[in-house]
Amino acid sequence: MDTERLDRQFAFIREIDREKAIKRQTYRSDGVHKENDAEHAWHIAIMTLLLNEYANEKIDVLRTVGMLLIHDLVEIDAGDTYAYDEEGKKTQHEREQKAAERIFGLLPDDQGKQLRALWDEFEAGDTPEARFARTMDHIQPMMLNAATDGKAWVEHGVQLNQILAHNSNTAEGSRELWEYAYENFIVPNLAKGRIRGNGD
Amino acid sequence: MDTERLDRQFAFIREIDREKAIKRQTYRSDGVHKENDAEHAWHIAIMTLLLNEYANEKIDVLRTVGMLLIHDLVEIDAGDTYAYDEEGKKTQHEREQKAAERIFGLLPDDQGKQLRALWDEFEAGDTPEARFARTMDHIQPMMLNAATDGKAWVEHGVQLNQILAHNSNTAEGSRELWEYAYENFIVPNLAKGRIRGNGD
Repeated sequence: MDTERLDRQFAFIREIDREKAIKRQTYRSDGVHKENDAEHAWHIAIMTLLLNEYANEKIDVLRTVGMLLIHDLVEIDAGDTYAYDEEGKKTQHEREQKAAERIFGLLPDDQGKQLRALWDEFEAGDTPEARFARTMDHIQPMMLNAATDGKAWVEHGVQLNQILAHNSNTAEGSRELWEYAYENFIVPNLAKGRIRGNGD
Repeated sequence: MDTERLDRQFAFIREIDREKAIKRQTYRSDGVHKENDAEHAWHIAIMTLLLNEYANEKIDVLRTVGMLLIHDLVEIDAGDTYAYDEEGKKTQHEREQKAAERIFGLLPDDQGKQLRALWDEFEAGDTPEARFARTMDHIQPMMLNAATDGKAWVEHGVQLNQILAHNSNTAEGSRELWEYAYENFIVPNLAKGRIRGNGD
């Protein structure tokens, strides 16, 4: 048995367990606990299985699911950068590049390169799969925010124009899902004042 | 837009968020927090992407990943039944069947039937995909137990023969991975007394 290959694969598998400790700003639907990166990735992977029928362009579902399962691994080293944390976003790219080198470097070379390429593709957002993956990544926290009466939006004083700027590409993965999310998750919370209007 | 279909899809997506609150008996690699079902499913889905090359039979990776992402959803209603909880296992089947009806029933009929069939297939364990999925499901907690110096095994006084009985089918998905897990996760913990020998 090629134990060196398996040793490297399991070194990576053991290491990524730490993603379960990377907290996000989004509350679970209970409105009490914040979700972590592993839970988030699991959730959007299932969403992809169910919602890929709404993709603007035909996508390879397995590639997209794989992309989403691994898309936050770099945060094991780099931490989660909140979508509306303008300071944190300045150093985010450099922190995440370093993390990608270390973490994907644990794997056997062929698989490390494969996963790194998949993550780079997600970051670049230039393929149908990456565009749809981003749509999933953005719609899921909106859905949870709406399910918790906008709790995280209120805590961070989030404004509509911030949400719209953050989601400027969300419709590129699926126009239909972006419209649904806008109507069902954003509009009602704007009406209730849970999201601040641009004039507030 | 067919809003009824999307409403049902999002009702399901919102409901399964509760899987993040279903605790397992296995500790994360930090040895402090127990993992939950969503984290576990995420972890074994990635393991499948990396380790399918060791499957005894060729498998459809997307089917297997989908199966693993959803395999514990029934525990939202039925709770987690620990592998070595003989009392709980008596009612497990009935509890999980009821849960499957309710939870998959939230989806549009076509997708509800699809996911229910995928879960039934996992439970029956009769296809190459289901056999490999079970191997992932069983090896991941062993790996975490080994990473935490056998903490959960010690807390439950687990004996070698219980582990071997629970894993009587693990090699059916991948002989190579079962051998690796046995040598690297079980044997050292037996030697250290973290797993009780059959005579202890």
